[in-house]
Amino acid sequence: MRLRKIKNAQEKLLDFPGLVIQEPQQYLGKWEEIFGNDNEIYLEIGMGKGKFITLNAHLNPNINYLGLELSDSMVLKAAREIRFKNLKNLKLVNYDATNLRDLFTTNSISRIFLNFSDPWPKTRHEKRRLTSSYYLELYKYILVAGGIIEMKTDNRRLFEYSLLKFNEHAFKFLDVNLNLHETENSDIITTEYEEKFKSVNNTIFYMKVKK
Amino acid sequence: MRLRKIKNAQEKLLDFPGLVIQEPQQYLGKWEEIFGNDNEIYLEIGMGKGKFITLNAHLNPNINYLGLELSDSMVLKAAREIRFKNLKNLKLVNYDATNLRDLFTTNSISRIFLNFSDPWPKTRHEKRRLTSSYYLELYKYILVAGGIIEMKTDNRRLFEYSLLKFNEHAFKFLDVNLNLHETENSDIITTEYEEKFKSVNNTIFYMKVKK
Repeated sequence: MRLRKIKNAQEKLLDFPGLVIQEPQQYLGKWEEIFGNDNEIYLEIGMGKGKFITLNAHLNPNINYLGLELSDSMVLKAAREIRFKNLKNLKLVNYDATNLRDLFTTNSISRIFLNFSDPWPKTRHEKRRLTSSYYLELYKYILVAGGIIEMKTDNRRLFEYSLLKFNEHAFKFLDVNLNLHETENSDIITTEYEEKFKSVNNTIFYMKVKK
Repeated sequence: MRLRKIKNAQEKLLDFPGLVIQEPQQYLGKWEEIFGNDNEIYLEIGMGKGKFITLNAHLNPNINYLGLELSDSMVLKAAREIRFKNLKNLKLVNYDATNLRDLFTTNSISRIFLNFSDPWPKTRHEKRRLTSSYYLELYKYILVAGGIIEMKTDNRRLFEYSLLKFNEHAFKFLDVNLNLHETENSDIITTEYEEKFKSVNNTIFYMKVKK
């Protein structure tokens, strides 16, 4: 998702000390200090403006949610939206997913969400896709045994690619849906990006796999 | 594909001795006697009226093709269409795929085609789907090491189900296409069923997996 850059976004993130985690590397192996409990952690990689993860955190108070986002402007935008919701089980992190090993020890994350990730359609950018071999091995490292990845996208090519990669890296497929919103299900929590695309009738693809 | 039953179809199949194989069980382990060579064998399960396999056989004279079909009326219809084409590398078999082990020894088939198989949508009919666990283990048995399965369908539910099953049975995904005919490719050999559905703009799903 694209957003106009906000001036001095990094500095402005300091205004949300309970919500936006500064220097997250220091919590490697001790996220329970941040959340005040050792409930399981669900991680969204590329949370955008945070609609999806916020609603999840609201509905599941016994699960800890971490929203990761590379763009500081986007994290700021999300923080401004979320600040008054007072969700103790939701924290935001402005960090590059490439370096997830800096933040999480092995077997520490229960579930990963990939929602409408950048498709990086050019072959020379393949490595940047969040379902490339590099990332899948990273996810295997941080996920607990039996840990789950849920992916949603409206990009057919990225989804086809991801089916091949998850299979190649021996993830077990639990669910595949090739037209998510044709299947009536009011339980589905949508992202803001998804709402936009639903309204113009794009097909939304979904899969759920297990480590 | 549905077809009106032809009266005495079994008997009428005897009129095509070079094309329709009678008592195919007798060729278990010795299909080279039928083809007169030991070229690799590609098998279509549920060939319908045989358009797809006939064109394949025409284009690839160094591969032996076997068209399997449960309905005798359908085999008869196919035989009547194909009889004058004089394709030495194409034979038709009226047999139930459930009993493939009667016809083929292990590691004897190089490729299997599943084109627009009956989706058997009801859960209680799951076992009849040509990508149920029963069949996938059967295919593993008859396929050579590295043997290929190619599947095409316009039934989303059957395709979603098949992705899960092929993954569960440790097939390696080589290609997945979630809108085959949007991708321009004049090399694609279509089935008669596919032509019909293309014309009303149904999405056609394709995958290619390896044992």
